[in-house]
Amino acid sequence: MNPGRCAACRYLRRRCPPDCIFSPYFPPNNPQRFVSIHRIYGASNVAKLLQQLPSHLRTQAADSLYLEAQYRIEDPVYGCVGLISLLQQQIHDVERQLAMTQAEIAFRARHPQAVESNLLNNVGNPSFSNQASSWFM
Amino acid sequence: MNPGRCAACRYLRRRCPPDCIFSPYFPPNNPQRFVSIHRIYGASNVAKLLQQLPSHLRTQAADSLYLEAQYRIEDPVYGCVGLISLLQQQIHDVERQLAMTQAEIAFRARHPQAVESNLLNNVGNPSFSNQASSWFM
Repeated sequence: MNPGRCAACRYLRRRCPPDCIFSPYFPPNNPQRFVSIHRIYGASNVAKLLQQLPSHLRTQAADSLYLEAQYRIEDPVYGCVGLISLLQQQIHDVERQLAMTQAEIAFRARHPQAVESNLLNNVGNPSFSNQASSWFM
Repeated sequence: MNPGRCAACRYLRRRCPPDCIFSPYFPPNNPQRFVSIHRIYGASNVAKLLQQLPSHLRTQAADSLYLEAQYRIEDPVYGCVGLISLLQQQIHDVERQLAMTQAEIAFRARHPQAVESNLLNNVGNPSFSNQASSWFM
């Protein structure tokens, strides 16, 4: 076995040519990286994708393909689309929390006396935020 | 040409068998859907992925594979990992804005006189939020 072969050529049991398309992005010390993307995309699809890019962008492409392959192996139904849905839900939740907090500020600006007594105890209390925003929104 | 063939079998120029793995998820009226995933994953990898799933989860898997393929075609370097980075940045920004707004509420609760005069004019003004949060954080 030639110890200089990249992880892809080792996995594919072939000679690793000097201009191997995989070699710079799949070093022999990390065989799992190629196994994952081979399982999801197949070697020829990855080679085609890398070949169509300028060489200074291929590392990023190999990294992102590896990440997507990992997500797909962990979640064969949704892959990284599952993570995208989760992040979109998280943004929605934080934006809603922000809108409620801004509504609380606006309410307090207009009704300083009404909330004066509860203020110091209720800052950051979600039920107070909900109440203030329901008055205002 | 058999008009009953699914988009995959039409594209692959083959007979569409009654138990075709692609047929329920790649109808003939949407040929682009199969073209996209074939370009990124290859037909045999998609068939393998669908076959390993119970049939009630295959529609979601075909949909998410199509979405990922579309992202990769639009952005061959980052694919949907680019969108994930963007969403993570967006969450970071909204969380930061939320923390500043909460700091503003806390500051106002502790210093009602100091901000009284500017309050009605400055609610929602980012420079005021920055100032209040820098006092407090």
